[in-house]
Amino acid sequence: MEVSMIEQQETEPASQEVVETNTRERLVNAAVEVFLERGYGGTRVQDIARKAGFTSGALYVHFPSRSALLSEAIIREGKIILDSMTESLDSLETQASTPIQAMAAFATAPTTKFDRLLLDALALAAGSEEFRTELDGALHGFVDSIRSRVTASKARGSIDQSVDVEALCNLYVSWVFGSVVSKALGLSMSDPDGLADIGAKFRSSI
Amino acid sequence: MEVSMIEQQETEPASQEVVETNTRERLVNAAVEVFLERGYGGTRVQDIARKAGFTSGALYVHFPSRSALLSEAIIREGKIILDSMTESLDSLETQASTPIQAMAAFATAPTTKFDRLLLDALALAAGSEEFRTELDGALHGFVDSIRSRVTASKARGSIDQSVDVEALCNLYVSWVFGSVVSKALGLSMSDPDGLADIGAKFRSSI
Repeated sequence: MEVSMIEQQETEPASQEVVETNTRERLVNAAVEVFLERGYGGTRVQDIARKAGFTSGALYVHFPSRSALLSEAIIREGKIILDSMTESLDSLETQASTPIQAMAAFATAPTTKFDRLLLDALALAAGSEEFRTELDGALHGFVDSIRSRVTASKARGSIDQSVDVEALCNLYVSWVFGSVVSKALGLSMSDPDGLADIGAKFRSSI
Repeated sequence: MEVSMIEQQETEPASQEVVETNTRERLVNAAVEVFLERGYGGTRVQDIARKAGFTSGALYVHFPSRSALLSEAIIREGKIILDSMTESLDSLETQASTPIQAMAAFATAPTTKFDRLLLDALALAAGSEEFRTELDGALHGFVDSIRSRVTASKARGSIDQSVDVEALCNLYVSWVFGSVVSKALGLSMSDPDGLADIGAKFRSSI
């Protein structure tokens, strides 16, 4: 079974049509869409305003600057991506799949524009207390989901009883976030079989 | 032997006094210093200008905006951090240390302000062709250093001969960059012994 940790994002959040929404939300939604198409540098205020059905002037009534709007959009979408990664981990069959299989699949999945957006969200959260607070629930949900799966693996004896759950949890979290960085940067990906093989060797050893 | 992959940065690059330097360089140097003290949101143009010995007006002669100056400063410092990580990997004794030991030490080292700066540099490079090009040499130098150590481990028989070098290299690169993310976000760190134990189990298994 192949497990894609973010397959849900490819179509849903950005293109979702919300019929009843206020101006601010429409602007943030439009900013996410334009950002995913054009990246940080290529996202122009006019394009966001046009997509939302407003003038650029109206946009500045709601956001002091282009970067304030983009930051809010990136953090909001980053939360959705993290929640969806957690959901996809949580939906794994306890017996049939292991965290390491899901992570190997994620690490070798093709790069998507969501890797870049999530990397931006993580960087924003690392640099700002306010954004960190915004992202905190989603971040901890993700870490907790990995922790509970590692704990369950240990409880049913499928990993070495001497393994420190927090350490293994930390290694897995780093692996996932590092895969986001590697993919966002287009660093050369190994073939999935090679990584799955290492994952299997590793899993059988702990 | 404890190996710190970025111990050199703590004091050198930001505080380095370059006597003969042009205005642009002085501004970038000052921007790095203020950024490391205050983070992205807290870095004010006046503080950078004052530290460099200029007026804010003079600063705008050289950089179109605060974010243009900060981005250049972050990418330049990110290159220095990556190069230093590579140097510290390269300086490991081939027989005495393994990449996994260096990485476990790095992953469990205390968080520094350089983790946050490197995360910003990686996010900038992922979002802009221009910055990606700037960071490319340093990124590939780092990946190549890990690859050559994995290749050497395989050649002298200390890892399983069936292991795919590219896959293991990719896993290690992800682990390091994921540790940068985890540390920059202050995600709970396991104790070093737990991670070192897992590293040892992992190493003996491949």
